Amino acid sequence: MDIGTVAVVGGTGRQGSGLARRFARAGADVIVGSRDPARAAAAIASWSAPTSSVRAASYAGAIGSAPIIVLAVPFDSVADLLARHASFQAGAVVVDVAVPVVFGEGGPALAPLREGSSAEHVKARVPAHVRVAGAFKTVPAHLLDQIDRPLDCDEFVCGDSSEAREAAQALVRLVQGLRPVDVGPLARARSIEHLTLLAIAINRRHRIHDARYRIAGLS
Amino acid sequence: MDIGTVAVVGGTGRQGSGLARRFARAGADVIVGSRDPARAAAAIASWSAPTSSVRAASYAGAIGSAPIIVLAVPFDSVADLLARHASFQAGAVVVDVAVPVVFGEGGPALAPLREGSSAEHVKARVPAHVRVAGAFKTVPAHLLDQIDRPLDCDEFVCGDSSEAREAAQALVRLVQGLRPVDVGPLARARSIEHLTLLAIAINRRHRIHDARYRIAGLS
Repeated sequence: MDIGTVAVVGGTGRQGSGLARRFARAGADVIVGSRDPARAAAAIASWSAPTSSVRAASYAGAIGSAPIIVLAVPFDSVADLLARHASFQAGAVVVDVAVPVVFGEGGPALAPLREGSSAEHVKARVPAHVRVAGAFKTVPAHLLDQIDRPLDCDEFVCGDSSEAREAAQALVRLVQGLRPVDVGPLARARSIEHLTLLAIAINRRHRIHDARYRIAGLS
Repeated sequence: MDIGTVAVVGGTGRQGSGLARRFARAGADVIVGSRDPARAAAAIASWSAPTSSVRAASYAGAIGSAPIIVLAVPFDSVADLLARHASFQAGAVVVDVAVPVVFGEGGPALAPLREGSSAEHVKARVPAHVRVAGAFKTVPAHLLDQIDRPLDCDEFVCGDSSEAREAAQALVRLVQGLRPVDVGPLARARSIEHLTLLAIAINRRHRIHDARYRIAGLS
């Protein structure tokens, strides 16, 4: 699948800018959606990687201008963002990358969500014609951000339509060394989010920073 | 940690017999606990691996005779088993290996459990002096059962005491090629169970049989 233009909404955070720069390096046209496009443009200008194919836009401008939109804003901002901006292209694919982790007495935990998972939380808040996928939930943000470092792990993709899963897998393949693993329906997102939670627990317990997953047995 | 004697309750199933034979091969004395010890003894006699350090016992005999007990009976049998047999050695460690998967319209899912996870379900049903760990939840049973095949993946261990986690990790180390990864408190068991669920989903979707996990970034 050829990725023409991809929007990264919240593309100036560590996860978003890592994705945006890696997508651009792989040849995609990237629109970085920001609440403050001027600030985003300045951030893009400061990036070391080639940025000629990256441009800044408002949230609305990014969402309305790309067939694939990665939502890289914090989980807590997603509902408000989607309530304000719903002008997606027909049949657009929205990729949810969030993992709603809360830190309580027992350590990190997943926030309980009425819809079951972050991806389903997004699905419940976009127009019916928009397709939703989950991806980029388990790869550590600071590794994504080190864009000269090829990755060496798997990334899990879920979605309720094959088009959404294909689009998300194509995005994953743009990131050097990252292998997409299709895990099926969108409801599998909660299991993926548990993988992230477990990786955080492993990081804390073993004083490391970048636990990530590889599936053995899958060629 | 030196493993002297380990009981595998339900040690004639695929998962149980794989574990029992691998533990025995690594030098442990193994008690296979069965509802029908004569049938278990016959099964053990049929095993190809050296079985001189393996003996059959009743459920009660196995549970009362070992400081470490692996519960390898089906999840649905655990509550009844523990209600009938509570004579553990002082400070015994019980290792829960179950993942309660149900198959519904949306495909495989984890059974919702009042206690949160299979491991906590066990914890709620053993005497207070007994310590509980979760382990061997993600390695495919049929790979365990191929005892001449070294494994190449990680196995996640959780528990509320360091003694329980240490004991479970020591068991994991008895299995050639299996690396224990300590993930902390017993409540992390549900996340481990989600890993198993996701592996099942990956198996079904990709028509493979032995998806399993390796953690990258952990030396």
